[in-house]
Amino acid sequence: MLNFEYYAPTKVVFGRDAEAETGRLVKEQGARKVLVHFGGGSAKKSGLLDRVCDSLTAAGVDYVTLGGVVPNPRLSLVRKGIELCRQEGVDFLLAVGGGSVIDSCKAIGYGLANEGDVWDFYVGKRKPTGCAPVGAVLTIAAAGSEMSASSVITNEDGGLKRGFSTDYARCRFAVMNPALTCTLPQYQTMVGCVDILMHTLDRYFTNTPGAQLTDQIGEALMRTVMDNAKILLHDPNNYDARAEIMWASSLSHNNLTGCGMAADWSCHQLEHEFSGMFDVTHGAGLAAVWGSWARYVYRENPVRFAQFAVNVMGLPNHFHDPERTALAGIEALEAFFRSIGMPTSIRDMGITVTDEQIAEMALKCSFFDTRTLGCFKVLDKADMANIYTMAR
Amino acid sequence: MLNFEYYAPTKVVFGRDAEAETGRLVKEQGARKVLVHFGGGSAKKSGLLDRVCDSLTAAGVDYVTLGGVVPNPRLSLVRKGIELCRQEGVDFLLAVGGGSVIDSCKAIGYGLANEGDVWDFYVGKRKPTGCAPVGAVLTIAAAGSEMSASSVITNEDGGLKRGFSTDYARCRFAVMNPALTCTLPQYQTMVGCVDILMHTLDRYFTNTPGAQLTDQIGEALMRTVMDNAKILLHDPNNYDARAEIMWASSLSHNNLTGCGMAADWSCHQLEHEFSGMFDVTHGAGLAAVWGSWARYVYRENPVRFAQFAVNVMGLPNHFHDPERTALAGIEALEAFFRSIGMPTSIRDMGITVTDEQIAEMALKCSFFDTRTLGCFKVLDKADMANIYTMAR
Repeated sequence: MLNFEYYAPTKVVFGRDAEAETGRLVKEQGARKVLVHFGGGSAKKSGLLDRVCDSLTAAGVDYVTLGGVVPNPRLSLVRKGIELCRQEGVDFLLAVGGGSVIDSCKAIGYGLANEGDVWDFYVGKRKPTGCAPVGAVLTIAAAGSEMSASSVITNEDGGLKRGFSTDYARCRFAVMNPALTCTLPQYQTMVGCVDILMHTLDRYFTNTPGAQLTDQIGEALMRTVMDNAKILLHDPNNYDARAEIMWASSLSHNNLTGCGMAADWSCHQLEHEFSGMFDVTHGAGLAAVWGSWARYVYRENPVRFAQFAVNVMGLPNHFHDPERTALAGIEALEAFFRSIGMPTSIRDMGITVTDEQIAEMALKCSFFDTRTLGCFKVLDKADMANIYTMAR
Repeated sequence: MLNFEYYAPTKVVFGRDAEAETGRLVKEQGARKVLVHFGGGSAKKSGLLDRVCDSLTAAGVDYVTLGGVVPNPRLSLVRKGIELCRQEGVDFLLAVGGGSVIDSCKAIGYGLANEGDVWDFYVGKRKPTGCAPVGAVLTIAAAGSEMSASSVITNEDGGLKRGFSTDYARCRFAVMNPALTCTLPQYQTMVGCVDILMHTLDRYFTNTPGAQLTDQIGEALMRTVMDNAKILLHDPNNYDARAEIMWASSLSHNNLTGCGMAADWSCHQLEHEFSGMFDVTHGAGLAAVWGSWARYVYRENPVRFAQFAVNVMGLPNHFHDPERTALAGIEALEAFFRSIGMPTSIRDMGITVTDEQIAEMALKCSFFDTRTLGCFKVLDKADMANIYTMAR
């Protein structure tokens, strides 16, 4: 087992009607003026925004609102948020939404707590010394941003999508009412399930031996997500299934499933470039590239893929032929993706990618040929292009 | 799934030589004067105490030391610690040891942050409004106090052992170097493994249905502990096995294995009275009573015990006869306890308990007939006496 640090300080308040606790939680944090940040109209239409704001008012906390966050949240709105917060003297950022809204809050938080251009942090030019406090009322189980250190922002100027992680940005609290996710369109629910799975998968495929408890927690999490995703296909209002998936979303990305081992993260990076260029939904993009990545790398360590096939996908172990077991596992996960309406190729998303676009994505993803990806198999720019080609 | 709160803010620094980070971590907390609290001479003899103190000095942090914590830590030393800390202007409590030392620190922390007699909190007379900050350098994988909200203190005056839990007392950080546990006597290692198992078992046996991810994480944890305990029987210096068990000790009691379900906790309460009277080691006492508790209650929900038998103990499922599967599971865990040198009855510990002592334990454990225990089966004073009788 490798040395590790684990730090997941977010206070989770989980369950039915949990959003009523928001005011108390913000108050606990000593906030005086809150930015209530949200996305499109659904938080408004559903009445959630009103309930959250009422809870703030009841707790005697003042607030301003800023909506309009879109999937793959934009740097321009982050900049607008920073300006608004400075004008209004905001000292606490409350995200009401999913990962995009939380990530937008985190970016605003970096901007408030540091001088200069916030984009610098996302492209690695400078390091922040803090982040204004962020809390979340979660409405989508997917990104895990409510317990993770990470945020991902897209700079429209150049279509660059970049992630950035520090412990400063971990949410102080996360309010999670699974019932809020019942009204999501099925496609979005399933895209979320893929995202959750991939936060564990991108940690799970490692060559580090001997992180047995971490392995088994990750395997349990993936089995749980797949099992409950299938329930939601036919019974989208099933509260318990929603709850399992929502709790899994947080545990999948708070690093519990990565303790003691080196994580790969190639698929996430490959997908970031892809959704940066085509603005596809993150989870769908992940499903579209995963199988190609897996087939490209599995020979590095077929036994690890065999473990996945047996312990996660529930397939028989061909003890004397790990490659056969490994490939069956890859096929089974792709079959699962298809069964919940997810693409397993770029073509499945109705997108035609040209050779030039593949070359551009590989160039950007390799930071203009200055970085490699992953550790399960270290991928250079040519490998990235090969995987994009397989996936198209 | 029931509503829940989950809050585990402890920063874990895990791995080889982790104790060298202590100074940095204390400094991060803004501490100026630290109480270094420890137990017997082993932390001294091993050189650990010197390494920790050197790390504090290197970070420019002043400290005083207080040793002498014993298993089932005593209220008298807690009081002495509070006095010393007040004299010395201590603002941070650093436990170098296992659960007893951490619990003693937490109690000192309550004493420092509140007026009046600290014992009041443990007997429920008053509620504290805070706790001085505590950090831990862990030397024993067992109690899980390094990530838990709880502390257990024994008042020598009356032999009362009482637990008390608040989020105030959660460690700010926990330094965990599994190699530090390699020198533990085998008995103490195995007693620790029982304690770890029981923190999950006392949560796992619940009648709350539908906490699937929590269930599977708990099952993974118990399998991991048993698997690695067996390795340590023959290979006590196996670092990876030590690491699995140490990480399990923290996850077993930070409430990860209890999210979304009602926990029982009967065995812990039954054992507290037992070790309060006979000063036996907590883990051994737990092993001695668990089987009797299980046989006394399993008919309330044999299917839950069958799930344990199959998913944790790896036994075949007699689908049409859950009672048979359930009993086989109880027998298998008792067999495991015996295989690692643990008692499965009070007699096995060389203790003869009289009827009067059983009556006294049941009386104390029922808070003089004013409380019941558990929820898997609600136990009154007579049930407690019955279980002690079965276990003797």
